[in-house]
Amino acid sequence: MSTTTELTAAQYAHGSAPSRGRGLPAAPSRTLLAPLSVTASRLADDGFWGLRARINADATLGHCLAWQERAGWLGNFDRAAAGTLPAGRAGREFSDSEAYKLLEAYCWEQATHPSDELEAVIVALIDRVGAAQEADGYLNTNFGRDGQQPRYSDLEWGHELYNYGHLLQAAVARLRTHGPDRLLEIATGVADHVVRTFGADGIQSVCGHAEIEVGLLEFGRVTGNSAYRDQAELFLQRRGHGVLSDIEWGRSYFQDDIPIREAEVFRGHAVRALYLAAAAVDLAVETGDADLLATLERQWERTVATRTYITGGMGSHHQDEAFGEDFVLPSDRAYCESCAGIASIMVSWRLLLATGNVRYADLIERTLFNILATAPSADGRSFFYSNTLHRRTPGETPEEREQSKRADSSQRAPWFDVSCCPNNIARTFASLGAYVATVSVEGAQLHQYAAGAIEVELPERGVVGLAVATRYPDDGVIAVTVTATPDEQWSLDLRVPAWAAHARVQVNDEAPTVVEPGYARVSRRFAVGDTVLLTLPLDVRVVGADARIDAIQNSVAFEVGPVVYCLESVDLPAGSHVDDFVLDTDARVDAVDGALHVTGWLERVPASPWPYAAAAATPERTPTQTRLVPYHSWAERGPGTMRVWVRR
Amino acid sequence: MSTTTELTAAQYAHGSAPSRGRGLPAAPSRTLLAPLSVTASRLADDGFWGLRARINADATLGHCLAWQERAGWLGNFDRAAAGTLPAGRAGREFSDSEAYKLLEAYCWEQATHPSDELEAVIVALIDRVGAAQEADGYLNTNFGRDGQQPRYSDLEWGHELYNYGHLLQAAVARLRTHGPDRLLEIATGVADHVVRTFGADGIQSVCGHAEIEVGLLEFGRVTGNSAYRDQAELFLQRRGHGVLSDIEWGRSYFQDDIPIREAEVFRGHAVRALYLAAAAVDLAVETGDADLLATLERQWERTVATRTYITGGMGSHHQDEAFGEDFVLPSDRAYCESCAGIASIMVSWRLLLATGNVRYADLIERTLFNILATAPSADGRSFFYSNTLHRRTPGETPEEREQSKRADSSQRAPWFDVSCCPNNIARTFASLGAYVATVSVEGAQLHQYAAGAIEVELPERGVVGLAVATRYPDDGVIAVTVTATPDEQWSLDLRVPAWAAHARVQVNDEAPTVVEPGYARVSRRFAVGDTVLLTLPLDVRVVGADARIDAIQNSVAFEVGPVVYCLESVDLPAGSHVDDFVLDTDARVDAVDGALHVTGWLERVPASPWPYAAAAATPERTPTQTRLVPYHSWAERGPGTMRVWVRR
Repeated sequence: MSTTTELTAAQYAHGSAPSRGRGLPAAPSRTLLAPLSVTASRLADDGFWGLRARINADATLGHCLAWQERAGWLGNFDRAAAGTLPAGRAGREFSDSEAYKLLEAYCWEQATHPSDELEAVIVALIDRVGAAQEADGYLNTNFGRDGQQPRYSDLEWGHELYNYGHLLQAAVARLRTHGPDRLLEIATGVADHVVRTFGADGIQSVCGHAEIEVGLLEFGRVTGNSAYRDQAELFLQRRGHGVLSDIEWGRSYFQDDIPIREAEVFRGHAVRALYLAAAAVDLAVETGDADLLATLERQWERTVATRTYITGGMGSHHQDEAFGEDFVLPSDRAYCESCAGIASIMVSWRLLLATGNVRYADLIERTLFNILATAPSADGRSFFYSNTLHRRTPGETPEEREQSKRADSSQRAPWFDVSCCPNNIARTFASLGAYVATVSVEGAQLHQYAAGAIEVELPERGVVGLAVATRYPDDGVIAVTVTATPDEQWSLDLRVPAWAAHARVQVNDEAPTVVEPGYARVSRRFAVGDTVLLTLPLDVRVVGADARIDAIQNSVAFEVGPVVYCLESVDLPAGSHVDDFVLDTDARVDAVDGALHVTGWLERVPASPWPYAAAAATPERTPTQTRLVPYHSWAERGPGTMRVWVRR
Repeated sequence: MSTTTELTAAQYAHGSAPSRGRGLPAAPSRTLLAPLSVTASRLADDGFWGLRARINADATLGHCLAWQERAGWLGNFDRAAAGTLPAGRAGREFSDSEAYKLLEAYCWEQATHPSDELEAVIVALIDRVGAAQEADGYLNTNFGRDGQQPRYSDLEWGHELYNYGHLLQAAVARLRTHGPDRLLEIATGVADHVVRTFGADGIQSVCGHAEIEVGLLEFGRVTGNSAYRDQAELFLQRRGHGVLSDIEWGRSYFQDDIPIREAEVFRGHAVRALYLAAAAVDLAVETGDADLLATLERQWERTVATRTYITGGMGSHHQDEAFGEDFVLPSDRAYCESCAGIASIMVSWRLLLATGNVRYADLIERTLFNILATAPSADGRSFFYSNTLHRRTPGETPEEREQSKRADSSQRAPWFDVSCCPNNIARTFASLGAYVATVSVEGAQLHQYAAGAIEVELPERGVVGLAVATRYPDDGVIAVTVTATPDEQWSLDLRVPAWAAHARVQVNDEAPTVVEPGYARVSRRFAVGDTVLLTLPLDVRVVGADARIDAIQNSVAFEVGPVVYCLESVDLPAGSHVDDFVLDTDARVDAVDGALHVTGWLERVPASPWPYAAAAATPERTPTQTRLVPYHSWAERGPGTMRVWVRR
C-alpha cells in the first residue's frame, strides 16, 4: 500500500456519504483508508457472504427477536417501564445489551433491504427501551430499584456501562441509516448521564467489561460531541491501574492489570481485551496519537504470532474465556468465542483503516471464513458460542426449546443462557458489506472478495462503480468490472493474501501479471466495462505448527485459500473416532466438490492400563480413505467428533 | 496376592488395636488386608517420608494454625459462640472445614509424637468448635443466623454437609488416638442432626461437595452406629438423579448426572469425584456389595488409563477443577489439585484393602512421590494448590503476608483464599505411616518403602516386628529386618512396582531370586534378626505418551523408580526457556546425585508473524547439557519455567 496521504474529515465530506459517516459502523475522522457504507458496498444474494447475509436477515434476526421475547429479556424493559421490577426480571446482568445488539442489526438490515416490517420492529424496540429510561438518563433493568443492587455498585460484573456501549452502537447505526429519532434522544440521555457520573469529578472507575469506550467514541463521531470522546479517553486512561477489585483470575481478566500503553499483548478475557483495543485504536486515530497506535499494532502482532488459532480464533481458556499465555493453544480446549472473533475483526478493521497494512485484512479474512462463517448453522437458527478445533466426544443435540450452556456440545444451539454471540453475529452479518472495500485519495481498495457491487465517490474525482463476480472461496477467480468511473486516472488495489503465491492479475485482454502478496495495484484511466481479473491459487496447503504449540505437534492442518478444513467422524467408518485416523503424508490429496480426499489409516491402540510407556504399543492399522470438509461447515450432520489438526 | 480369606471384624479384634480400629484413618469392618494404626507403623525421622512427616509436625501444623487464626477462620467459631455473627465472618463457605482437617492432623500427630503442647492445641480447638454448636446439633458459622442464608438453602455451594464430613473424620481421629471426649459429643450431635434432617423422611438431597458420606461411614464404624452408615448410603443413592441444580458446567461437576453404579469413569470436580468414590468403596465393603466394588474398580481403571497425569495427578480443567474427557491431559493447563492427589490416595487405599490388587499400591506410590511430596515446600511453610506439569511463565514469588490465588504462580504460596490443600496435606503427612503396610490372615504386606518400624499382631498368631532400612527412592535397596515374630510360619509380601523389571529378593545370605512386579512373597518360620533384602532397579526410564494425548506427542518424560523428573529453566543458561530445550535422544543420560544429566540443544526459533506454516523455520541450535531434577523438588530456586515432558 503506497498511499500515504490521510483523508481528512473535510475530504471525507466530499464522498457520497455525509461527513458523519452515513451507513458506517465505524467512521474514523481521519484515516488512510475510508470505509464504505453498507449501502455503497452491497453483497450479491448468491455469493458466499451474500447468501449468509440473506439467511441472517430471513432467519437469524427473527430468531433472536423471538428468543429475547420468549426468554423475557425484552419484557424486562416493559417491567421497568411499568415499575414492577425486580419481580419477574429474566436473564443475566447483560441481557439488556442483547436488545441493543439486535436493534443495531435491524438498523443495518433496514438500510440495505428496507421494509415496513423491519421499520416496525425497530420502532417498537426503540419505544420499549426508551420507556425504561429514567429521568436522569440512567437505563438498566437490573440495578437501582428497591430489591436490586444500587446503581454502579458492582462495576466488576454489573455490565451497566457495557450495556450502554451497545446501546450507543445501536444509536449510531440508526442515526447513520435513518437519521435522528427517539433512539438518538435515548442514547444522548445515556451518554450525558455517563459523562456526568463517570467524568473527571465522577466515579473514578471503569466497567469490568470494556465496550462503553468504543460506543462513546463512535457516538462522539456521529454527534460531533467531543465530551463523549473525552469520556472514553478517561475510561481508557483509568483502566490498568487496579481500579477494579482483584479476582481469582487476576485483574488481567478486566485488562485492569497494566495500562493499555504499557501492555505488550492482548490478555485476559478475550472479548473484553478486543473491545478495549478497538476503542483504543479509535482514540489513537481521533487524537492523532501515533505512539498509542504503534503500541496497539505491536500488541496485535504478538497476539497473532503467539495467541491465535489457525482459524483466527482467539481465547484458549474456558475458565475465564481468556487468552492463554503465549503458545497455549490446545485444540480440544480451544474456546474461540464467536464474539471474540467478531471483536478481533473490529480491531483489525480499525487498524487496517488507520495503517493500510494488508496483514489486518488477511486476518479479517481468516476470521470471517473460519469463525464468523462457522458460528451460525446453515439455516441461521443455531449457533456456536465457542468454536473448538477438536471435539473429542459427540455430545447431544441441544433441545430446540431450551437455553443451552455455552461450550457444551458438538452441535450448535438455538440459544444460550449467555446469548451474546447470536446477536453479535446478527449485527455483523447485517453490516458485512461495509468490510469489503475502502476508498482513499488514490482510488479504491478491495480487501475481501465477495460477489457484489460497490459504488463510491472518489474524493474530488467522481463516482467509481465496481461489480465483483466470483465464486470465491470455491474458486480463485475474482472478476471486477468497472461500472462507473471518473474520466481520469485512479488506482484499484486488490488484496493478495499472504498465502497466495503466484497470484495473477489480468486487465481486459492484456497479458496477466504475477503479483506478490500485499496489494496489487492497477492504476489507469479506467473505462466503463473494463475488467480486472484476479486469480488466487487455491492449492491445498498442508501446514504444521510452531514447536512451542505443544498441543498439535503430531498433527497437520489443511487449508485451501482462506478456508481451514477439518475431519469429522461422520466421514469415517461407523464407530470410528477422529482420533483414530492417521494421515499418510505421502499420499495424494484431491480436492473434489469442496472436500479434500485424503488417505491414511485407522489405528486401534491396544487397551493399556497406563498411557505412558517406554515403547508405544503397536497399533492395529486399517488403510482407509476419507475426506476433510471446510471447518465452517462442520457439525451439520448430527453429533460426532472432529479435528482440525489431523494426526500424521 | 494369593490371600483369599477376608479378615472379619472378630478376627480383627484379635489384633493389637481395639476392634474399632485404634489409630486408623480408615478401618473397614472386613477386608482382605487390614490396615495398621499410625502407632503400629512408624516412620524413621531421617527417611524420605519420615523427614517430611517431621517437617509437617514442626512447621506445617503451626503454620496452618497461625494462618487460620490470622485469616479469622477460627475466630468465626468464637463469633458464633458469642452470637455476633454474621458481623466479621471471614473466609469462604467451607472455611469451617479447615479447622476440622487441621484438628484431625493434630490428633494423628499427637498419637505418634505425644506432647502436652499438642494436646493443648487439640483441646482448645475442640472447645472453640464446640462452643459454636447449636442446641439441635447444627454447627456452621456461615448459615442460619439473621443476616445469613437459611440452613441448607444452598446445597450446591453451601458446603454445610461437606464441613461436617471433615468434622466427623477429625472425631474419628480423636476417638481412635485418644478416646471419647468432648469432640465425640460434638460429632455425635452433628451426625444425629444430619440423620434427622436428611434421613429417609428428611430433605431429599445431597451436598454439592461429597465428603459427608466418607465421614459418616467412618464415624459409623468407630461408634458402631449403623444409622450413620445408612445415612451415607442414602446420600450415595440420591446423588446422580439430578437432585442438585444444573449449573454451567453440568451436573457432572457434582457427580449428580449419573448414579454412581452406572458411571463408567470418574468425572466432574476431581476432589468431589474422589471423595465420593472413597465413600462408595467403604459402603461396598461394609455392605458386602461386590457389584458396587467391581463398578468402582472399573471406574478407577478407566480413570487411570485415560485421565491421569504421569505424576498421578488428576484433574485437567482449571475452569471447574475437574477431570477432562479421556486423553485431555495438557501439561500446561494441568490442574492436579493437591487435594485431588490426596483423595486419589484415599480411594486407592480403600480399594487396596478391599481387593489386595497391587495396582492400587502402585498408583499410591506414584501419587505420594509426585503430588504429595511436591505440594509442600521443603520447609513445610508454602504449598502448591495446583501441580502443573509445564510452567510457561515464571510468575512472581507470592507475598508472605498475603493469601494467594489457587493456581497463580510457579512458586508455592504460604496460604490461599481457598486453603483446603495445606490442611489436607497436614492431615495426610500426620497419618502417613498408616499407608505403608497391612496385615492379613497370612502375614504382613509392605506396600510403600519408607524407613521405619512396624509392629503388629498377626491375627491369632502373635506379634510381628519389622525394621525397614532404606534410602529409597535415592537407592533401590530396601532392607527388612525381623524384630519380632511368632514361632510359626507366616508370609511377608513385598510390593514390586510395575516399573521394576528384574527386581531381586534375598533372604539372609541365601541366593537372590528375581521377582516379577506384583507382590513378592517370602513364607517361612522367621527368626528375629532375619533380613529380607529387596532390590528395585533404579534405571532411568524414558517414556512417551499414548498417541491420543495430543498435548505431549513431541516430548518424553524421565522417571527413576517412582520419581518423575523435570527440567527447570534455572538449570539452563540464563535467559533460556524450558521450551527452548530439545533433547538429543541418542545421547547418554547419567544419574548423578539425584539429578539426570542430559544432552541436547537450545533452539531459537526465528520470530514469525504467524505460527502455522508448511515448513517449519529452521531454528538456530546451540548444543547444551543440562540436568533434570525430581519433580517434587522443583520451584525451590526462585521463579522460573518448568517442563516434565521435555521436547525431543
